[in-house]
Amino acid sequence: MRTIDTGDIDDMALGATLLGTGGGGDPYIAKLMVKQAIEKYGPISVVDPRDLPQDGLVMTSAVIGAPTVILEKIPSGTEFIAAVKAMARYKGQDPVALMAIEAGGMNTLVPLAIAGELGLPVIDADSMRRAFPQIEMTTFTLAGISAAPLAVADEKGNLCIFETTTNQVAETLARGAVIQLGLANAITCYTMTAAQIAQHGIHGSMTYCMDLGHHLAAVQRGETGAFARFLEFAEAKHVFSGKIVDIDRRTTKGFARGTVILEHVTDPDRVMRIEIQNEYLIAFENDVPVLTVPDLISMLDHETATPITTETLAYGQRLEVIGMPCAPEWHQPGMLDLVGPRAFGYDIDYVPFGDKA
Amino acid sequence: MRTIDTGDIDDMALGATLLGTGGGGDPYIAKLMVKQAIEKYGPISVVDPRDLPQDGLVMTSAVIGAPTVILEKIPSGTEFIAAVKAMARYKGQDPVALMAIEAGGMNTLVPLAIAGELGLPVIDADSMRRAFPQIEMTTFTLAGISAAPLAVADEKGNLCIFETTTNQVAETLARGAVIQLGLANAITCYTMTAAQIAQHGIHGSMTYCMDLGHHLAAVQRGETGAFARFLEFAEAKHVFSGKIVDIDRRTTKGFARGTVILEHVTDPDRVMRIEIQNEYLIAFENDVPVLTVPDLISMLDHETATPITTETLAYGQRLEVIGMPCAPEWHQPGMLDLVGPRAFGYDIDYVPFGDKA
Repeated sequence: MRTIDTGDIDDMALGATLLGTGGGGDPYIAKLMVKQAIEKYGPISVVDPRDLPQDGLVMTSAVIGAPTVILEKIPSGTEFIAAVKAMARYKGQDPVALMAIEAGGMNTLVPLAIAGELGLPVIDADSMRRAFPQIEMTTFTLAGISAAPLAVADEKGNLCIFETTTNQVAETLARGAVIQLGLANAITCYTMTAAQIAQHGIHGSMTYCMDLGHHLAAVQRGETGAFARFLEFAEAKHVFSGKIVDIDRRTTKGFARGTVILEHVTDPDRVMRIEIQNEYLIAFENDVPVLTVPDLISMLDHETATPITTETLAYGQRLEVIGMPCAPEWHQPGMLDLVGPRAFGYDIDYVPFGDKA
Repeated sequence: MRTIDTGDIDDMALGATLLGTGGGGDPYIAKLMVKQAIEKYGPISVVDPRDLPQDGLVMTSAVIGAPTVILEKIPSGTEFIAAVKAMARYKGQDPVALMAIEAGGMNTLVPLAIAGELGLPVIDADSMRRAFPQIEMTTFTLAGISAAPLAVADEKGNLCIFETTTNQVAETLARGAVIQLGLANAITCYTMTAAQIAQHGIHGSMTYCMDLGHHLAAVQRGETGAFARFLEFAEAKHVFSGKIVDIDRRTTKGFARGTVILEHVTDPDRVMRIEIQNEYLIAFENDVPVLTVPDLISMLDHETATPITTETLAYGQRLEVIGMPCAPEWHQPGMLDLVGPRAFGYDIDYVPFGDKA
């Protein structure tokens, strides 16, 4: 068991931004929520799911909506509590811990704030270890675990509970509700036992996220050898140093889509194109795919090593493109159907990490 | 108490089509469902809400979706049972009877079929005594009764339960879910006690619908004096004899909208324009509003006295336009805000029935 105090939150938010791979929602507001919760209720415990009563129920807490709206429609906090409490009522059982669905973006931090308020520990696991735009894109779906019942709540007192036949239907129903409720709401789903998480979750995600942020912070402070240590810790590769020469973004069908093109800083014959669907999904170098989803693509500002999200991309920015392998738990049957390039509509094969970059 | 047998169903369906005021969904499929239920489970009791245990829960059962889709995506029946059973589970109490939300269109008959299968009586009341396109357009809303919790179910096993702050939000959430679930689903809402229905429902709607159909059937058979008796029973007025000279229909924002223009059969200087939003809502004669929502506008085929729904309107049809006053229970504070012309976006005043037609 580890406890998270206010001093840890900046590292965690930094790691979460990196694991957001350009999306996942800016963790800034969630960071304030967690700091406030810790100041009010004390440090938050992070526990291994194997250390909990194995039949105890674990519930998730997350923001669902459009990142662009969430930035302006600040969570009140009551909606998250409402969703968790509705789920407890519906299941007839209180949770023994909360969990992040995704360690990546703002939803890494939201469960910490809510766990603090509810006096519960947070599980040191998640189901993505990166950000993904849809509810069904989890290792739990690969294990056949239902996201339902889902509870979706707003800050006004509206509440939805969904029972669904598939996690894809869960996604469409929750998305439909969120469109009606203002595009920034709370969701609690994938309620399961600690034993199920121990078996099917991605272990250590919360501490991984914090440690990753810790290493990146050292890079940002300009410590000698920090970039190499960061890459080694993340098993990451630095694949490109470029300058944005073209950028196209549009919001269609509920996604922030776009394309960003970088020209190499020293070799103008090298061009990198990155395709965006909320997150950075595919990186092509001179039209050859070199990094593909579910592996992670992150971009760091050349000067400050700040992870650059899709909203803050700008013409002329000088960026370092980093590739990181997805969590090893993803490598199991069904991965590519669920979260490979074709799951996002790109007609290319998955490129195993390290083959091309 | 009265029982409804297969012999009553044709009259009831005819009355329901008339009360559908052009919309409400074609009762044909629902008619088959009821006949089958009666053949299998026996006649269905129709009871006065005052004759039930006053604290007994009454639940509704209805189709929600787009009438055009419902015609092709035939209900399996299991979705209605699923919605009622989910509501009973959620409330922790079984219903003592079912009720139609709207006596008008197919939702007049659906509760009969489901009540037959569940071995329950149907209440002789509703909350519209005509068809309306939205969930919140009920006398219950005027009484401050919540439509929530709502249960929306499909035939595959997907289920939504909504708790909402207003009946308007109930409408938007249910509509959002139905869009994701195929536009022809089952809904159970406005669960309340028999005492509440006795106080705030529109009484006698089911028998009214059946008797109305009975009188119209006599007109269709060409019985002497039947048309006058029909008008007298319905307190209706025959306002126009016309031929369709123009028709414009479009499906936008989830509604079937349109305009139909009739030229008078003997006086070409008289033109009637009827505005459609799922139902016939406003009738203008030479641009003067003569019939306005919530009063009812129906059109009968000149030859056969068949009520003509908006889907079956056609150029050149010769029609009789009939106006009927809305149920007297509608006349209470808040009516026009909820179901008057401006509630549907028409910038005209309500014309009290009989003032102009």
